Amino acid sequence: MKKHNFYAGPSRLSDYALQATSEAINDFAGTGISLLSISHRTPEFQDVMDSSAELVKELLNVPEGYSVLFLQGGASLQFAMVPLNLLDKSATYINTGVWATGAIAEAKCYGEVVELATSKDKNFSYIPKGWESKVDPATSYVHITTNNTIYGTQYKSDPNVPALLVADMSSDIFSRPIDISKYALIYAGAQKNVGAAGVTLVIVRDDVLGKVDRVIPKILKYQTHIDKGSMYNTPPTMAVYTCLKTMERYKQLGGVEVMHQRANAKAQLLYDEIDRNPMFKGTAAVEDRSNMNICFVMNDEYKDKEALFNDFVKARNILGVKGHRLVGGFRASIYNAQREESVQALITAMQDFEKRHI
Amino acid sequence: MKKHNFYAGPSRLSDYALQATSEAINDFAGTGISLLSISHRTPEFQDVMDSSAELVKELLNVPEGYSVLFLQGGASLQFAMVPLNLLDKSATYINTGVWATGAIAEAKCYGEVVELATSKDKNFSYIPKGWESKVDPATSYVHITTNNTIYGTQYKSDPNVPALLVADMSSDIFSRPIDISKYALIYAGAQKNVGAAGVTLVIVRDDVLGKVDRVIPKILKYQTHIDKGSMYNTPPTMAVYTCLKTMERYKQLGGVEVMHQRANAKAQLLYDEIDRNPMFKGTAAVEDRSNMNICFVMNDEYKDKEALFNDFVKARNILGVKGHRLVGGFRASIYNAQREESVQALITAMQDFEKRHI
Repeated sequence: MKKHNFYAGPSRLSDYALQATSEAINDFAGTGISLLSISHRTPEFQDVMDSSAELVKELLNVPEGYSVLFLQGGASLQFAMVPLNLLDKSATYINTGVWATGAIAEAKCYGEVVELATSKDKNFSYIPKGWESKVDPATSYVHITTNNTIYGTQYKSDPNVPALLVADMSSDIFSRPIDISKYALIYAGAQKNVGAAGVTLVIVRDDVLGKVDRVIPKILKYQTHIDKGSMYNTPPTMAVYTCLKTMERYKQLGGVEVMHQRANAKAQLLYDEIDRNPMFKGTAAVEDRSNMNICFVMNDEYKDKEALFNDFVKARNILGVKGHRLVGGFRASIYNAQREESVQALITAMQDFEKRHI
Repeated sequence: MKKHNFYAGPSRLSDYALQATSEAINDFAGTGISLLSISHRTPEFQDVMDSSAELVKELLNVPEGYSVLFLQGGASLQFAMVPLNLLDKSATYINTGVWATGAIAEAKCYGEVVELATSKDKNFSYIPKGWESKVDPATSYVHITTNNTIYGTQYKSDPNVPALLVADMSSDIFSRPIDISKYALIYAGAQKNVGAAGVTLVIVRDDVLGKVDRVIPKILKYQTHIDKGSMYNTPPTMAVYTCLKTMERYKQLGGVEVMHQRANAKAQLLYDEIDRNPMFKGTAAVEDRSNMNICFVMNDEYKDKEALFNDFVKARNILGVKGHRLVGGFRASIYNAQREESVQALITAMQDFEKRHI
């Protein structure tokens, strides 16, 4: 029975990437050896690592002067590595939810944090506006979280700031064209739009490194990984391979522009139903609604039917739509690999539920 | 054509673990969803994580009061996390090669390092002896590397020290019974004897944590990961699964005692041939020879035939036996999953090469 997978991450990957990975575990690149059993020092795996970095550069139009890295530790390790490598005296953070809050907490281990704007007053249901002009140009960097998985909010454009811009793009990278030249550093846990859990994509402007006066262990220095082409230590070989295959599929389909059109279209379908259906309402400010994580709850008069709806969709093989406890209700995660067919299945379920209960 | 895989890591894994992983990428635990696409918050994945920790405890007889963690970043991140979490003023390191040297360098970021013993004088070809009694009981901990992949040396027993003992067991954990109670902390990159690259096993005695007076980012605190059962952030789900299946296989075969007997037997076969064959000689001190990485070179009069022998074995589908550049010659890595059949194939090649050239 086909499942409709709406998990927030790890989440649906393309059949192309899954099949290629499964096959490589049996025989990697015609070597007669499993991808899980082959040395990362073989030319065959070196090619995977090099091709992955090249494909990131191609898909995102990464300009000269940037390095692309595949690291371990998830976005959560980046919360610490960013300030460790870049924070001199003080850094600026825009707080848009749990993950931004986590990044702020780690930065405070290394210096002062200016929380210049936050949407905490309304349970992070919107993206703060108008803060760019208030950034102190002396700040080490400005940190944003471009998509907020839990609350379903998303920046729709790249901010203009008079300082280095750092972004956690874990849940929306590759879903819209971005102007990389506006960023000093971008990081993204792979398990949503990059590939498999266990690897983190980092894009860093080389000239921003090496400026802080702090002892940093080698493993936590970006420069170490740049110098060694993401092979300072054994990389998570399988996870990198799945990233390569995931990105290959994006290229086959037409690249990030096409991903953006698809994301807009899929999200619009679901938001239209949420806005139309009298039983449901969206939780995020309309102008900040995420294309990746669509959060909705039941209108007050139907609030008691949330558990019922959850069982109702599960019976239709629609999985992972229970909302995060901090928002409640429902969350449909529709990253790049999500099928329109699954979005339609959810919409049909909402309509059928409406017919049954109104 | 069957390959004989002697890579030093990532290295051969059991057919059982590979097949289970490949299948789970198609359909994980009967969920109808790929292991790579399922949320780590599902009961099915929670069971993988819990079972993996339980199996480590069972296989290694881990006493009460220890936690078992599956983290990211490899042993190289442990080089930094250990001193970050445990080093007060000064720590003691035994230097047995490149990896121990790397661990020492990271520890120096956080305090003083006493390099109490080293085998550097003879290119790390032996394990230093007699240093236990010289350990300062006031030291924060004593750090050893139980198996030295590059040089083919291995501690044959657990040292007795009047301080906390920390061990990097990346390349020989599960290959011999160990007395866990002698250790405060053990870590091991998974890609040799635990499972797939991208995850690190840590076994830590709970009561040694929280004693240092240092600001530590949450992600780098062992306590964070203990409190969250290795799910503080998204774990490398596939890699953990492969570890579970690798360990299940160890249990099926009879556990660590049986792994030890097999390791002894396989290593003995190869060392016997090295000692018998007039063309070759071992590089490690006989009493410290590793069961996992068997290093040998050609005797001086045949030194010019090393490249020839390398081609000779490659033509027989024997892969990965070129020695590390710091030792030269050859290295056969025969971790737990290595087949005796492959060891025999290498021995036959050595004998055939001898017949041809002597």
